Amino acid sequence: MQPLELERVLAQLREALERDDLAAAVAILHHYHPADKAELFEELEEEEQVALLPELEPADSADILEELDDEQAAELVAALDPEDAIRIVDEMEPDEAADLLSELEPPQAEAVLSGLEDPEEVRPLLLHPEESAGGLMTSEFLALRRRTTAAEALEAIRRWKPEADIQQIFVVDAEQHLVGVVELRQLIAADPSARMIDIMDPEVISAPVGMDQEEVARLMARYDLLTLPVVDAENRLVGVVTIDDVVDVIEEEDTEDIQRFGGAQPLERPYLSTSPFLVMRKRVGWLLLLFLTATLTGSVMRHFEKELQTVVALAFFVPLLIGTGGNAGSQTTSTIIRALAVGEITLRDAFRTLWHELLTGFLLGGVMAVAAYVRALTWGSSPELALTVALAIFLIVLWANGLGSLLPLLAARLGIDPAIVSGPVMSTMVDATGLFIYFTIADIILGL
Amino acid sequence: MQPLELERVLAQLREALERDDLAAAVAILHHYHPADKAELFEELEEEEQVALLPELEPADSADILEELDDEQAAELVAALDPEDAIRIVDEMEPDEAADLLSELEPPQAEAVLSGLEDPEEVRPLLLHPEESAGGLMTSEFLALRRRTTAAEALEAIRRWKPEADIQQIFVVDAEQHLVGVVELRQLIAADPSARMIDIMDPEVISAPVGMDQEEVARLMARYDLLTLPVVDAENRLVGVVTIDDVVDVIEEEDTEDIQRFGGAQPLERPYLSTSPFLVMRKRVGWLLLLFLTATLTGSVMRHFEKELQTVVALAFFVPLLIGTGGNAGSQTTSTIIRALAVGEITLRDAFRTLWHELLTGFLLGGVMAVAAYVRALTWGSSPELALTVALAIFLIVLWANGLGSLLPLLAARLGIDPAIVSGPVMSTMVDATGLFIYFTIADIILGL
Repeated sequence: MQPLELERVLAQLREALERDDLAAAVAILHHYHPADKAELFEELEEEEQVALLPELEPADSADILEELDDEQAAELVAALDPEDAIRIVDEMEPDEAADLLSELEPPQAEAVLSGLEDPEEVRPLLLHPEESAGGLMTSEFLALRRRTTAAEALEAIRRWKPEADIQQIFVVDAEQHLVGVVELRQLIAADPSARMIDIMDPEVISAPVGMDQEEVARLMARYDLLTLPVVDAENRLVGVVTIDDVVDVIEEEDTEDIQRFGGAQPLERPYLSTSPFLVMRKRVGWLLLLFLTATLTGSVMRHFEKELQTVVALAFFVPLLIGTGGNAGSQTTSTIIRALAVGEITLRDAFRTLWHELLTGFLLGGVMAVAAYVRALTWGSSPELALTVALAIFLIVLWANGLGSLLPLLAARLGIDPAIVSGPVMSTMVDATGLFIYFTIADIILGL
Repeated sequence: MQPLELERVLAQLREALERDDLAAAVAILHHYHPADKAELFEELEEEEQVALLPELEPADSADILEELDDEQAAELVAALDPEDAIRIVDEMEPDEAADLLSELEPPQAEAVLSGLEDPEEVRPLLLHPEESAGGLMTSEFLALRRRTTAAEALEAIRRWKPEADIQQIFVVDAEQHLVGVVELRQLIAADPSARMIDIMDPEVISAPVGMDQEEVARLMARYDLLTLPVVDAENRLVGVVTIDDVVDVIEEEDTEDIQRFGGAQPLERPYLSTSPFLVMRKRVGWLLLLFLTATLTGSVMRHFEKELQTVVALAFFVPLLIGTGGNAGSQTTSTIIRALAVGEITLRDAFRTLWHELLTGFLLGGVMAVAAYVRALTWGSSPELALTVALAIFLIVLWANGLGSLLPLLAARLGIDPAIVSGPVMSTMVDATGLFIYFTIADIILGL
């Protein structure tokens, strides 16, 4: 398959729609992979989308809705005829259908749901929070009994027509308790008369329905799993999470972390489809908060007004010192936050981590002190002022590294996302305290 | 399977090793999942590891080596008897074996390689750069001809004993050109006499050997692929990338981005096993560079020494202004860099993105100007000074948003990782220019 030439195909598609030739537009879209279909579809105007959706094969429309954001998909479905909506949602994978329905108004969702061929495949999925194992899982899985033979299992697979592909079958007892897993390849290789209990792997890793999606992702990545069975409190198999959903979760969570890092609330939708006003609202809170804390830094400077008036040159080093402190702190927090996120360190390692960063800060502070001393002298400062700046930078870097490792660990301890204490928060905290250190040293060394 | 109780099992393991009971240690480890085996193993002393490795089942040792960092695994293999090393590497998946061998000294790698049961399975994998599709792929795949029947294909799967599991088989012509893909489930469901050409999907998505691993990851995530066939320049099938390797790549690349965000070079190894000296080296370059550019900010202040001496109160607002500018810039870059990384925007969207950020900057700048005006007045500043600060903060935020969107786009255009122009770089650039804006406005409004 060739990669999608978006511009060219989009021009064809628009041209077909302009002359109201829906059939031609349908034929063009039909050609592409669901992900490409969705990308093309997203570029169209909303009325074009609503017109086109019922004309496509229901399976194609379902593919597109599965790839869109849930909110966007729900808006489209709400604008469709109820029969069209039902026909399309029926072709969706149950977990995707549930995500979409949960974005609709309750009466509308119920109307679509009750029209489905098998509402009971979707209904239980609506009960779980979206960001949990239960919210991620699909109800499409094949569960067989322990005494089923390989030949019977192969026959069951032949008869079964799921919306998505499957990699494994699960083995349960009479009460639906999960007792094992069989890979399709094992099943093919097995003697036809062999029973599930003989070929299954009884050491099956599962997740409780309530497990947070980030933990689900971590678990599947750690154990290289393609599917993860989900069980209720009694270890009964209720669903399966597939790796493709988890890849999306990992990307989503990392995006949130990175946006928090930049000191903004996560956007939660694609960048270009978020209006500047909404982007502003996601950022202004932090910016104002950081502004208020930055006035603290100004207050520190006011407090040392006398010193500044006596030696104006002290002011020249202010950006240098607060910049270096903020940068050292950012370096530390970003390392620690990421190490926490991927599980390289846990709270048990708090003390080791702090010690590790203090040593690093000691080394970094030493290097920076030498650099600052030389720079101050070449700038024509007195040796006393140069010494003040060097000593201040050493202590500020050490302090920034300590704070930069303690804050994310503390946040994690309190159950807050450590990414909150990211670059900007760190910088602002180090600014005020750093200047206090600086002017105090100046008082002592310069005898002000 | 129960989650690993690390502390408890580790205590048992250490106790067995202390009384030199290698057999007991082997029995304990054998019990756990490869990922858990590796975690336990990593906690041991190096001499314990070297003693234990040849005693384990070769498949268990291979599992552990596959989970460790390549460097760490290579160090262990280098310390083993050559025969033990060969026995263990023989049980590794070919792509993992190749990654390990490429970390050994060439003569040693050659000695292990030539001792393997099937060196030709591994040797071609050594030719590709580690971070490319070729470096990620395994040579373990099943490729059948178009006229092969479903019954023959199932028989081939039964005879084949790969190290890892498979989800699909590939269809090739007489010259090994990739022509289709068949899911195991399709194969099971097919009529036994059906030929591959009738059941295969000819629209198979593949990657050239040289494709960068980040692009490979993006492709597999976009199309929800479990495996991605890799082809040479003539479209001949040479290997297959599996999703578990790609999940690791995504995490690795996101970790690098986040570490760059904090203004440090990526560590490239787990945090706690990186010495403070090495951590310092990864950070000091950026810190010094940012220090030097920060002296620019100092120079701007020196340039306006007269103004500062006349109105010392101007200095109080310096941390506030450069802080807000840096924060607004960080918010923008982090959003843009991430949107570029996940493909939400491309260089084609450069102009739209800039415009989007300028609008956002306009709104944010307005809000911040009001806040700054009020704050300055309540701090007892004159209305003229308050106006200066408000106007300056408005322009600085607008400027920071513009620069914050242009710089990552420019970096991407030049083929540099946009994450380089992250928070600290942005802040430092906005600092100097921001102060210049501030003092220039002060000159005009306060008539200095």
